[in-house]
Amino acid sequence: MQIKVVANVLKANRDVASENRALLKELGIKVVNLISSPGAGKTTLLERTIADLKEELPLAVIEGDLMTTRDGERIGRHGVPVVQINTGGGCHLDAAMVKKALEELPLKEIKLLIIENVGNLVCPSSFDLGEDEKVVIISVPEGDDKPAKYPVTFRRTRLCLLNKIDLLPYSNFNVDNFYRDVRALNPEMKVLQVSALTGEGMEAWYNYLRGLVQSN
Amino acid sequence: MQIKVVANVLKANRDVASENRALLKELGIKVVNLISSPGAGKTTLLERTIADLKEELPLAVIEGDLMTTRDGERIGRHGVPVVQINTGGGCHLDAAMVKKALEELPLKEIKLLIIENVGNLVCPSSFDLGEDEKVVIISVPEGDDKPAKYPVTFRRTRLCLLNKIDLLPYSNFNVDNFYRDVRALNPEMKVLQVSALTGEGMEAWYNYLRGLVQSN
Repeated sequence: MQIKVVANVLKANRDVASENRALLKELGIKVVNLISSPGAGKTTLLERTIADLKEELPLAVIEGDLMTTRDGERIGRHGVPVVQINTGGGCHLDAAMVKKALEELPLKEIKLLIIENVGNLVCPSSFDLGEDEKVVIISVPEGDDKPAKYPVTFRRTRLCLLNKIDLLPYSNFNVDNFYRDVRALNPEMKVLQVSALTGEGMEAWYNYLRGLVQSN
Repeated sequence: MQIKVVANVLKANRDVASENRALLKELGIKVVNLISSPGAGKTTLLERTIADLKEELPLAVIEGDLMTTRDGERIGRHGVPVVQINTGGGCHLDAAMVKKALEELPLKEIKLLIIENVGNLVCPSSFDLGEDEKVVIISVPEGDDKPAKYPVTFRRTRLCLLNKIDLLPYSNFNVDNFYRDVRALNPEMKVLQVSALTGEGMEAWYNYLRGLVQSN
């Protein structure tokens, strides 16, 4: 009984996600759904990305949080359109929330939409929002064992950003073990090592976004 | 309709949690439920706690993970009873899972049970397991904004361990802002600064556990 309800929720979500996807495709907007634990650095990564790319690549942001508009305000300061979704306790965004947020964005003026999901490495990967790509962010201080422990998210994404590499010297994170575990779960997964704080490695991430926007 | 189902799930969970609590109280066992994001250092903290306290304080561990028995194996090496629960994708432990795990533990030989919940700062705080205390762990690299962004967990706990304080020099974590936000949500909250890696501050955490076990 409980499982049946969950299945219906997921089915209803998929239907709305398909509507979002059709609308965004028609407008030629590419969409990335950022998934990570709390504190892996999604917002800082976004801030630097916006500062470096906004002149070249018209973009907007949807910010997902349980509560507060802190992250939306951080993004808004960079002068790009942003809508904050507060789930009021829900641990992930769903397609209906995104659908409503799309109504508030100047869709005709943008080419890239970045959705920052609620900080949670579990549930967000089960809810399609209508995105083109899910991107998972893992930060060095979380430890190299995260792929094996949160396999579903790694199986459902094709790009992983390994963030906070500036902290590698102060950590026992084993990069080889991390890559081995990621590849065991998902041989197609691409990993980019970045530091949103220092900027190291960010150019490869920007090239990924440029390629996505130029793709058909 | 969906809300009704969720309410029923929570009610059913509370009933089983009450059974767990009654059983554990009868046996004189105190129970701590550790809640944090993935990678905040729960298992490392537990390993050091066990190594330092196991001769003095007979304890056992229930390990919650989506998949893998890695953490259970890490704890088992320290020679204390441990049961691993794999939720198979579920993002939190529930009271029924803990009830089954209790059947596998030598309850007559222990005074303290530590439950390491699934790595998730959202859902675990809504599911009573029958514990005496929930303890939330935040690690420095996650950022000082976590209390405001995950308020429910902070309202439902009375102790916060601020872990990985050895990384404070390499981070922009503002300890004053963190304390201010924690106290705004929960004036009763006690915060202990620790590093499970270096051992700094751990004695205060051990004193907390000693006090809990000695309490009525």
